[in-house]
Amino acid sequence: MATSSGRPLAIIAGGGSVPLHVAAAALGSGRKVLVLGIEGEADARIVDYPHEWINWGQIGRLEKLLAAHGTRDIVLIGGVKSRPDFKRLRPDLGTVRLLPRLISMMASGDNTVLTGTIRIFEEWGYSVVGAHEVSPDLVAAPGIVAGPTPRSGDLDDVRLAIAAARGIGVLDAGQAAVAMNGRVVALEASEGTDGMLERVAALRAHGRLKSRGPAGVLAKCAKPQQDLRVDMPTIGPETVTGAAKAGLAGIAIESGRVMIADRTETERRTKEAGLFVFAVGGQAAA
Amino acid sequence: MATSSGRPLAIIAGGGSVPLHVAAAALGSGRKVLVLGIEGEADARIVDYPHEWINWGQIGRLEKLLAAHGTRDIVLIGGVKSRPDFKRLRPDLGTVRLLPRLISMMASGDNTVLTGTIRIFEEWGYSVVGAHEVSPDLVAAPGIVAGPTPRSGDLDDVRLAIAAARGIGVLDAGQAAVAMNGRVVALEASEGTDGMLERVAALRAHGRLKSRGPAGVLAKCAKPQQDLRVDMPTIGPETVTGAAKAGLAGIAIESGRVMIADRTETERRTKEAGLFVFAVGGQAAA
Repeated sequence: MATSSGRPLAIIAGGGSVPLHVAAAALGSGRKVLVLGIEGEADARIVDYPHEWINWGQIGRLEKLLAAHGTRDIVLIGGVKSRPDFKRLRPDLGTVRLLPRLISMMASGDNTVLTGTIRIFEEWGYSVVGAHEVSPDLVAAPGIVAGPTPRSGDLDDVRLAIAAARGIGVLDAGQAAVAMNGRVVALEASEGTDGMLERVAALRAHGRLKSRGPAGVLAKCAKPQQDLRVDMPTIGPETVTGAAKAGLAGIAIESGRVMIADRTETERRTKEAGLFVFAVGGQAAA
Repeated sequence: MATSSGRPLAIIAGGGSVPLHVAAAALGSGRKVLVLGIEGEADARIVDYPHEWINWGQIGRLEKLLAAHGTRDIVLIGGVKSRPDFKRLRPDLGTVRLLPRLISMMASGDNTVLTGTIRIFEEWGYSVVGAHEVSPDLVAAPGIVAGPTPRSGDLDDVRLAIAAARGIGVLDAGQAAVAMNGRVVALEASEGTDGMLERVAALRAHGRLKSRGPAGVLAKCAKPQQDLRVDMPTIGPETVTGAAKAGLAGIAIESGRVMIADRTETERRTKEAGLFVFAVGGQAAA
């Protein structure tokens, strides 16, 4: 990515450490940054960077901040746990103007909120770019990410779990699956990846899934319709711990299409648990 | 199905009430029956019908019994919970002869056991027929099976859940899915249908799935590669109770391709819980 000749990259920051990582990566590549932390969500350490705090009632202020700093590119990154409470907001004029649209976006679900938000920024004249475009180490190149080389049987489970995760992605149901000893044993939907891994651990504990020693692979893939600029499947240290508790041999992700949050700690836990994290290519990056 | 002019239908009976139902249906249509109850599995009430008890060590005896009764058609029906313990068997000559083949079938998983068993019976000169061919009321015609007519939103969830269940069937992962308010919220794999329904109930109890009043549909479909003569997806009274506890509006099944065990009790519980059971057509019966 070319540097924007002094124009700061705006990072609209939800929760977690990834927004800080993106800010550091941008600075490291010679870009200026402006971190716009969402109140109640963003990590307090954003104060180490040029920053402003914003809330859902300050969309007019956000628009002015972006313009005043000469922003061209915007990254939206980090989790957002709470929904805006429109009854308690003290909306500025910019928010009031967008309120009917925001409420309708909220009512239609998470995907609509993200695509709607991108559209608003684009109407204002900005480009929304992916965090992984600013910080390419957030995603994996094909091959071993951490841990030992998968054995032949593990690679069969890698292929099967990846096929299953892609299959349910097409159904818009979930992003993850577990295959063990040549069988698909778990598919993710509303329970989420951590919930699915807890289920696999319970099935093993109750003898419903039998295997000597570590076996099985968690695969995580992007859905074909997912906008990877703002909505990437993610693994992180908790995923590794969940996979280890489920007695799995490793984790497979799509190269370039799945984010690794807190990569240093993720790799450390992977090695500590004796698992592998393996990235497969084969599907064009979006 | 034509009657076999005095030749008894052999019903190799695993657990549950369905083998008894098939025996009664065959007698009701003017056929003779011979129920061959698997020891430790079949319901004790098979003694109300012409019967013999058999175990995994008596394959030679089974072969002689079938021949002595002039059998032509065989139904394999009912659950088998335990695997044969080849170390504790006292095998007759017929079993000894088949032992290497049986052990290799067991090692390759449930599907191989079923297709391998069919092949052995066919090599002996018998036809394996589906329980639903003898007792067509075990499956549903398209339309309402029990309970009220699904509302328009429920029909959307019926379509979505059926599409998801068929989608994971293609992956050979599971046979069932739950859709709620236009989203796929659960996909079945090794936890089974009852386990998946418990998960949906827990997600609702913890507020992870929100809905006022009953909402959502459990769909159950046959996998495309499933041999419906010996391996049909099944719903029954426990499925209805599980769906009610998960707060669902109803259950959708494929017509002709999903068995309804204990239909009287299944329909009674469906009405009592205010659910619907709805059968969709559209896929050719195998």
